[in-house]
Amino acid sequence: MASQPTTPLTVKAFQALIRDRYLATDAARGTPGTFMWFMEEVGELATALQNNAPGKTPTPEEKANLNEEFADVIAWLTTLANINGVDLERALAKYTDKGGVEGVKD
Amino acid sequence: MASQPTTPLTVKAFQALIRDRYLATDAARGTPGTFMWFMEEVGELATALQNNAPGKTPTPEEKANLNEEFADVIAWLTTLANINGVDLERALAKYTDKGGVEGVKD
Repeated sequence: MASQPTTPLTVKAFQALIRDRYLATDAARGTPGTFMWFMEEVGELATALQNNAPGKTPTPEEKANLNEEFADVIAWLTTLANINGVDLERALAKYTDKGGVEGVKD
Repeated sequence: MASQPTTPLTVKAFQALIRDRYLATDAARGTPGTFMWFMEEVGELATALQNNAPGKTPTPEEKANLNEEFADVIAWLTTLANINGVDLERALAKYTDKGGVEGVKD
């Protein structure tokens, strides 16, 4: 049984959940093929952002879809981290540690 | 003073940190311009994944850079969520709730 995150959801728990559920499949597919899936979701996120842009009147389905596309992009990004041995909580220390980036994100 | 997440890092604390630090700038820039920054980091992530691919012998700098690019992509994605009113912890319930997606990510 996969580790089940409880509220509040931690980055570590989410990465473990994605690892438990998808690592075998995604590791076998490899990084290039998994990156393609990730990019497909990035494209769907772009569509959802356009559908919910200022001045639009999105349907309830389009509003819900925006949330889903963010989740899907994060899930594929997390599985890419898993198959490349990247610990996301540790990586995010670039932002969360004092002395890390402050004014800029790049 | 911005809310400072502690270990273990929660999704909510990270989103709040990014909101405190970047919301004003990124909201003023708007979604299209912020999406461009996000995509620039996605490109840098692709480069870092290639540099660390199986068969390569990445330098310590290239290894560290892979971690950084994951963090940067997540940071820009999080700021896109902030300026579009998306709560990432709630969005990720698609994956974390029982009865959510199990076998597929899309």
